[in-house]
Amino acid sequence: MRAVVMRNAKLVVEDVPSPIPEQGEVLVKTLACGICGSDLHTLDFAHKIAEAAQGADASEGTNVPDSMDMSGDVIMGHEFCAEVLAHGPGTTGQIKVGTRVCSVPILPRQSGVTAIGYSSEVPGGYSEQMVLSEPMLLEVPNGLSSEMAALTEPMAVGCHAVEMARLKGDELPLVIGCGPVGLAVIAALKLKGIGPIVASDYSSARRQLAETMGADIIVDPSKSSPYEKWSELATHGVDGETLPPDFLTGMPGLRTGVYFECVGVPGIINQMMAGSKQGGRIVVVGVCMEEDTFTPMNGITGELNIQFALGYTPEEFTATLFKIAEGEILAEPMITGTVDIDGVPKAFKDLADPEQHAKIIVKP
Amino acid sequence: MRAVVMRNAKLVVEDVPSPIPEQGEVLVKTLACGICGSDLHTLDFAHKIAEAAQGADASEGTNVPDSMDMSGDVIMGHEFCAEVLAHGPGTTGQIKVGTRVCSVPILPRQSGVTAIGYSSEVPGGYSEQMVLSEPMLLEVPNGLSSEMAALTEPMAVGCHAVEMARLKGDELPLVIGCGPVGLAVIAALKLKGIGPIVASDYSSARRQLAETMGADIIVDPSKSSPYEKWSELATHGVDGETLPPDFLTGMPGLRTGVYFECVGVPGIINQMMAGSKQGGRIVVVGVCMEEDTFTPMNGITGELNIQFALGYTPEEFTATLFKIAEGEILAEPMITGTVDIDGVPKAFKDLADPEQHAKIIVKP
Repeated sequence: MRAVVMRNAKLVVEDVPSPIPEQGEVLVKTLACGICGSDLHTLDFAHKIAEAAQGADASEGTNVPDSMDMSGDVIMGHEFCAEVLAHGPGTTGQIKVGTRVCSVPILPRQSGVTAIGYSSEVPGGYSEQMVLSEPMLLEVPNGLSSEMAALTEPMAVGCHAVEMARLKGDELPLVIGCGPVGLAVIAALKLKGIGPIVASDYSSARRQLAETMGADIIVDPSKSSPYEKWSELATHGVDGETLPPDFLTGMPGLRTGVYFECVGVPGIINQMMAGSKQGGRIVVVGVCMEEDTFTPMNGITGELNIQFALGYTPEEFTATLFKIAEGEILAEPMITGTVDIDGVPKAFKDLADPEQHAKIIVKP
Repeated sequence: MRAVVMRNAKLVVEDVPSPIPEQGEVLVKTLACGICGSDLHTLDFAHKIAEAAQGADASEGTNVPDSMDMSGDVIMGHEFCAEVLAHGPGTTGQIKVGTRVCSVPILPRQSGVTAIGYSSEVPGGYSEQMVLSEPMLLEVPNGLSSEMAALTEPMAVGCHAVEMARLKGDELPLVIGCGPVGLAVIAALKLKGIGPIVASDYSSARRQLAETMGADIIVDPSKSSPYEKWSELATHGVDGETLPPDFLTGMPGLRTGVYFECVGVPGIINQMMAGSKQGGRIVVVGVCMEEDTFTPMNGITGELNIQFALGYTPEEFTATLFKIAEGEILAEPMITGTVDIDGVPKAFKDLADPEQHAKIIVKP
């Protein structure tokens, strides 16, 4: 089968053997697979990740999950919709051949849990065929396109990040960065009715997308500070009343800030800590793979909370698929292009320009 | 009156005018005042703090509260017990002259809220007399010594930090650093029945104190890793049962970690992020006044939470005073020395050696 192989931190398109389903697994045909920013990051940092993964068992090493085995060739792609081709040994056959399915990109095998799309053991969605775990298959609700179903994964990331923010309902959200992750967070905030949503991005195309996805106040950070705009809005409660001043600091009362870091480059977390107000919660959804610097005093004096978020629960994934199908989560505007397998290396390059693209879908 | 004045980042003992109570304030005689690690830090970083405070209104500046005005001479000392000497204008006189009192070290004035002990406007407890706000006075419960009552403030810091950890009851705590802050956290965890408490410090004297205060497993980090010791304990649930493996990572199930940073020097937060396990919560109680570095990937892959904690609520302060008086919070072992006003500059130097001292009480 045709596949995009990451080898020595480069992408090459070539023919590789089809995967063979093991116990409890089905063979599927990839119908659509989104290209994720993490894959772009991973390509850049392939070498570093491999190093970190080797230290995963060291008590003071990094926390890279055992499920990510990037020691050999890797076929990436973890945002997929597929069609059942054949049932492997030990399956029930309950989901028939020809059914369109989604799945959390995880393969629980006897040998351990494998992350589909970040594994040298099984191919991800940048290939014509994959193997999936039968008990984890979710039938695509009737009528939802495969491209939209493939957006379940990135939209679930947004829903999970918003869950991790432990919202009570009266928070004022600020989304820094309106790439696919920021857009998914905006959609999830909209679904929860948390707002007004302040969103910020240097790219005009992405600011436009943020508005389409439901952001209420859009800031161009090259012209004005998103934190200042947030503060202007935050001095009034949900109903516009003036909030009581803070007891210890005597500062004006503010709505609680929940700040979503959706950029993933060094310096952003510290910038957000400096811009966050008393009791603010920063949810880190962007994946920064480099060392970073920060000023603890910004966190201490504001009693800030930093919540790092990654992935989603299986329940959140399932709920997201159904909410997209029911039109409760807006996802369609995210898609800015489609390519075939051979077009993937160029698509990786194109995605570097935020004015051109948000989400490119691979259709093998 | 005799007082220890911080001037140009140095401590000098001299005679200064007694403070005059304003509207709603009482004049008190300082009976006992603890020397806080933050005061040692403040002396070291007096210059930096003054700079940061000037930028407090800048949207992307630091979050130093307006209540800290360190532009002129400062008489520090915010962990105090005092005796009412006289009532100022507009007071009720409900708490009689001669009564021993504690107070949150905050003075709410018409001109704004002032932090007692970090202000050029009013003296803190390293002086013979102070002014306090009458409505904030708490009568020392009968029989509790003034030295013990002065420990209300640092012990409240520990209680607040433990509250900020949002404990459900089944977490396994690790306390890094057993100076006064770490010891207060240990006492607060003990009060909540959260354990076993793992505690770590390079100083044998402080490890001994940690044990006295109620820590269950004490680690010398020069000999073994506190994170490894924590992990050994965490693989079994509260009742010793084996926990189910994590769904996404396939890693062995662990008790949730709650890690208290009670050191306050650069590098510790990142060390704790690297050592923390899946879903761990790091509560930063130590006050690091310098820039710091960290590895976001450690936070991301483990979905860690970092909660910065500072101070306490008035309710927590009151509860702490009564719990010390009732013997529910062990505080006495913290006190390792007493000095008079003239002894304060030397006491600041002595406190640099963790083998010598934990808490020195000033008795003017």
